[in-house]
Amino acid sequence: MYEGVVQDLIDELGRLPGVGPKSAQRIAFHVLQADPADVRRLAQALNEVKAKVRFCAVCGNVAQEEQCRVCLDPRRDATVICVVEEPKDVVAIERTREFRGRYHVLGGAISPIEGVGPDDLRIRELLARLADGAVTELILATDPNLEGEATATYLARMVSSMGLRVTRLASGLPVGGDLEYADEVTLGRAFEGRRLLDV
Amino acid sequence: MYEGVVQDLIDELGRLPGVGPKSAQRIAFHVLQADPADVRRLAQALNEVKAKVRFCAVCGNVAQEEQCRVCLDPRRDATVICVVEEPKDVVAIERTREFRGRYHVLGGAISPIEGVGPDDLRIRELLARLADGAVTELILATDPNLEGEATATYLARMVSSMGLRVTRLASGLPVGGDLEYADEVTLGRAFEGRRLLDV
Repeated sequence: MYEGVVQDLIDELGRLPGVGPKSAQRIAFHVLQADPADVRRLAQALNEVKAKVRFCAVCGNVAQEEQCRVCLDPRRDATVICVVEEPKDVVAIERTREFRGRYHVLGGAISPIEGVGPDDLRIRELLARLADGAVTELILATDPNLEGEATATYLARMVSSMGLRVTRLASGLPVGGDLEYADEVTLGRAFEGRRLLDV
Repeated sequence: MYEGVVQDLIDELGRLPGVGPKSAQRIAFHVLQADPADVRRLAQALNEVKAKVRFCAVCGNVAQEEQCRVCLDPRRDATVICVVEEPKDVVAIERTREFRGRYHVLGGAISPIEGVGPDDLRIRELLARLADGAVTELILATDPNLEGEATATYLARMVSSMGLRVTRLASGLPVGGDLEYADEVTLGRAFEGRRLLDV
């Protein structure tokens, strides 16, 4: 339909997650009319990411050096490891400023449906990090869904003999949420995990 | 929050129309894990579009040569010009395979609110194309909204003394639509434009 290179761009954009044919077309026309310098910067950012970003040799997080910023930071508590599924979970947790320990990125969660087993995750690397006994707490921060729960249970069993404190993030009502709109599983978890108020 | 180049990419993606911060992050992580060849192709498609695409010297449509594919095609009827706002309107009309004439892309519509006046559109170029009298019909296919209607009315007045057949695309109920969900203006237009059924 479009002149060759415009159609090529629409096709390439359409392969990105969450970009349908209509958005791809809209972005392509935006690009056509945009400042050439802006477009050059976007193209360069894409190439730079592929050229420069790798995964931290220790924790599997996104990194620009051999290790990621968290692993390179000597102020981070090396006795606590928070296990997450993806690098973006690290960012979400960093944003809370609640956690001062280290991370371990699994690269996904156990999912028999999608054919992801324990061997496809960075579990062996995690066990290696725990081997010297320096780590005292393992926080299992996998997603609060079926796959995440299964992965947390699997990991908890794997390390049960290591004498670690193994914890899981609390499930419950989202802050600022509305009780009546909470789904029944979340509400059930909120009951299960209810805390005594010291008044 | 992210390693430098990842954040750069998220920032650049977030400037695209319809891409919010969450989608930008999602696309960036997709890019991180994507095949390097795919990402290179996308970056190249962006650069190629800026390097190779220009606007047709005759009609203002997107073009890879001095003129666009429609203007270069000798089989297209040069006596009918369809006036549209944007190049993507050309594509939408081409998709119908109903129209075999030429186009004229205005580059927008008259909009006092957005500060777009007649001089900001390719109206002078349109009048120049009509000057030799070869064109016999001008189809005003600007959008069926306030700005598009105003632009159509303005153009109709401009060419009223040229002895052209000036037409406007029909307004009415969308095919496959549901009468009860049509807005009142559309339904009003559908009544106004009702046609005699020959049975």
